[in-house]
Amino acid sequence: MNAAERLASSYEALCAHTRETALLQSVQALLEWDDRTQLPTAAGPYRAEQAACLAGMVHRRQTAPEVGGWLDELAASPLVEDPHSDAGTVVRRLRREYEKKRRLPPTLVEQLARLSARGQQVWAAARKASDFGQFLPVLAETVDLKRQEAAALGFATTPYDPLLDDYEPGTATTEVAAVLDSLVASLRPLLQAILASDRGPDGRLLARRYALDAQREFGMAAARAIGFDFSAGRLDVTDHPFCTTLGPRDVRLTTRYREDDFGDAFFSILHEAGHGLYEQGLPAASFGLPLSLATSLGIHESQSRLWENQIGRSRSFWEGLFPAARAAFPEALRGVEFAAFYRDVNRVAPSLIRVDADEITYNLHIGIRFELERALLEDDLQPADLPAAWNAKYDAYLGVVPPDDAQGVLQDVHWSAGLFGYFPTYALGNLYAAQFYAQAAEDLGDLEGQVRRGEFQPLLQWLRSRIHAHGSRYEARELVERVTGRPLSERPWIEQMTRKYADVYRLD
Amino acid sequence: MNAAERLASSYEALCAHTRETALLQSVQALLEWDDRTQLPTAAGPYRAEQAACLAGMVHRRQTAPEVGGWLDELAASPLVEDPHSDAGTVVRRLRREYEKKRRLPPTLVEQLARLSARGQQVWAAARKASDFGQFLPVLAETVDLKRQEAAALGFATTPYDPLLDDYEPGTATTEVAAVLDSLVASLRPLLQAILASDRGPDGRLLARRYALDAQREFGMAAARAIGFDFSAGRLDVTDHPFCTTLGPRDVRLTTRYREDDFGDAFFSILHEAGHGLYEQGLPAASFGLPLSLATSLGIHESQSRLWENQIGRSRSFWEGLFPAARAAFPEALRGVEFAAFYRDVNRVAPSLIRVDADEITYNLHIGIRFELERALLEDDLQPADLPAAWNAKYDAYLGVVPPDDAQGVLQDVHWSAGLFGYFPTYALGNLYAAQFYAQAAEDLGDLEGQVRRGEFQPLLQWLRSRIHAHGSRYEARELVERVTGRPLSERPWIEQMTRKYADVYRLD
Repeated sequence: MNAAERLASSYEALCAHTRETALLQSVQALLEWDDRTQLPTAAGPYRAEQAACLAGMVHRRQTAPEVGGWLDELAASPLVEDPHSDAGTVVRRLRREYEKKRRLPPTLVEQLARLSARGQQVWAAARKASDFGQFLPVLAETVDLKRQEAAALGFATTPYDPLLDDYEPGTATTEVAAVLDSLVASLRPLLQAILASDRGPDGRLLARRYALDAQREFGMAAARAIGFDFSAGRLDVTDHPFCTTLGPRDVRLTTRYREDDFGDAFFSILHEAGHGLYEQGLPAASFGLPLSLATSLGIHESQSRLWENQIGRSRSFWEGLFPAARAAFPEALRGVEFAAFYRDVNRVAPSLIRVDADEITYNLHIGIRFELERALLEDDLQPADLPAAWNAKYDAYLGVVPPDDAQGVLQDVHWSAGLFGYFPTYALGNLYAAQFYAQAAEDLGDLEGQVRRGEFQPLLQWLRSRIHAHGSRYEARELVERVTGRPLSERPWIEQMTRKYADVYRLD
Repeated sequence: MNAAERLASSYEALCAHTRETALLQSVQALLEWDDRTQLPTAAGPYRAEQAACLAGMVHRRQTAPEVGGWLDELAASPLVEDPHSDAGTVVRRLRREYEKKRRLPPTLVEQLARLSARGQQVWAAARKASDFGQFLPVLAETVDLKRQEAAALGFATTPYDPLLDDYEPGTATTEVAAVLDSLVASLRPLLQAILASDRGPDGRLLARRYALDAQREFGMAAARAIGFDFSAGRLDVTDHPFCTTLGPRDVRLTTRYREDDFGDAFFSILHEAGHGLYEQGLPAASFGLPLSLATSLGIHESQSRLWENQIGRSRSFWEGLFPAARAAFPEALRGVEFAAFYRDVNRVAPSLIRVDADEITYNLHIGIRFELERALLEDDLQPADLPAAWNAKYDAYLGVVPPDDAQGVLQDVHWSAGLFGYFPTYALGNLYAAQFYAQAAEDLGDLEGQVRRGEFQPLLQWLRSRIHAHGSRYEARELVERVTGRPLSERPWIEQMTRKYADVYRLD
């Protein structure tokens, strides 16, 4: 073997090793999906053992010395000269992962996996009982382990940085804080104008009785219409909606249904289907390699938000879909005019539950979580004091106070699963979505007309070719510039919202 | 360390290793359960890769040289002097497994796992299309691999022996053939008398319209009543009903529902719940060790059959449950008399589908499969000729001929999953069940009265203490002698059936 052949052979070995690790990771994903949709209540402890066993195996494979050897060998090779080539992408991403993982002790990784599995069971029970006290010990242990994790990874200014980096590679806590500040500053006058209007919708049409079976059928039909492939996916029921990928052709969505809330299930189905379209659009042949992974959670969220909001809450979408909605829910929508329904879909009202929040107030929910989880990690807030801090911030930012923990601090699954640093990616997703949508509208010409006619393929193909097909070839910030010609900015989002809500709320 | 301490330490190491292997096996079981209840159609190929990866890992752990070392060291130790002690049981069972597995090449194990996952997908599609041709290539490959497996394991007279031994340890093919012959010989005059009677039930009451949701509720209530713990289990929908264990407190049952067939779902739920009660009764603290494993599939089947037939199709069971059935299905059972319903539950009619078969003809379905799968393995029958052979035997034994493959050779999942040697354990289960039931009735006094009053705990506790609690401490044949004082015999079954059907069919 000459030098070039030896490098090619090392690259092949690295890829084969990574693909086999991905097989085990996909099994981990199945354990987690089953946890959240199927697991009998008494089965939690053994499931935690299973999850910890697999997490340990995956961690050992990811940090195996031979991986370091292959990466070192390839580091300065011509194969990876172009960082955006296949090999350049694979090696760059795997090196980043390898270096982070090598810093984590295997026992800590196993502890976190075990606690995450158990934590979600405890959280679900605590939420049901609306009793933060049941959840507190698990939360305290999780914060402690996440601080240990941050310390092991290393950081300059805040333990939040290395955790955020897991979800939004290369983005610093201070940058997120700056973007959110800027967003909130622009948002405040718009929100005030909306709340001051006495000509807005009251949202009552969406609180009529919508039969659960019909909701499920209607939601699945909408997901199918925008392009989600149910021969390679499913839709199930869970406490907190999510999307997970168990294989190149196995993408699973979940939602929850309430008879008196049409929007809860419908928009979460569109949202999760948006995630699912990204996953189904990643290059299947590279499954198991970074080439077939989303580049960041913010970009992932931009795909769900775009379909949920820019499309799913738009006038043209409902102009097209409203007749089908009337047929699906003949009693709830008897005598209802399109314009009233569309305005109710876009009602703005400060509220308690993040996943129910409207487009405008949503980012304030994120701001609260971002500040609280930073404070927990930076030891400025004790876990026992979290409910009081939560309620105070809701009062200050949104003018509402949770009457109980279930509608307050226990509403989200994330912290129970050890996901700290995850929340801000939702806000970044909103901004990326608006920026992508503006560009797509420019490129596609009559996007609104296409949406009105139910022609979603042009937009999906635009997203496929410009975003999905690249996997993690470009970091989020490179991708945004590449696709839109501009760096990340809150302006497109603010402009779209200002235009839309001037119409919905008849602002002058 | 002295010699005794060293032995104790080796035993601990062997147990820890075995329990960790069991963690991976329980994950395999989850993959399989998901395959059969949840998997999107396009997801099959990657699922097969996942299954093969885990099968390879489990096989490597089961055949690791250190296992052989521990077993050799423990072989002649005082710890295992009593073969029915904890250590005696663990070492005996693990040695048997180790020796069998060591004879199988890892590549063959992985091929079988991959083919099993794919085979079940292909089978489900072929069955839906009622097209044996779609299934033939997979079947031919499976038979070939199973013959390779038998050759690797070694056998004296027939390749069927080492495969049967996987399910019914220590029982030879010739013994099964002898028991089935004897059973069929005793059964023939009874069946003739039944079919000659013109005073039997016609079964039409069970073919009325039974709402699916109500069937599910009623079936779950019955499973709960006999003692199945749904906080440590589930009931889902699948093509072919089964029971699987994913953890010490995670036992999953499946069934299927037909609106015009009350018995199909109800008796399969009782049947699978019977399996589930055995699994839930195994000692949880020993989960992962042979102490917490069923001793044979025949014994497992005896538990499902006892609850399905000896209890579930008895007069006293329905005397107790009939009022609830009328409340659950007010339209289907309006004006229906208890006696007519009870007799319809026990209608005997030679038919095409094994899982729908009555108690009397059921064993003939098994006889056919036993002969055909032996012939396939012994190369006396080519896979392509299987449908014709199947149809000829149904005509000869039962006087019925399948009109298509879906109702014939494609009806069961077993062969698609590589389960050869499994079918006869169903017939053994029938015989064990009758023998256990006769003994329980003797020990418990008023068993029929208890059943009539819905008091299932005495029987369940009897089964728990005499059978479930022992796991695989005793081989099936030892267990039967221990519990009933007699070796396996078809007599109790024949006696029970003769008495019951003389009543149902008013034989003189």
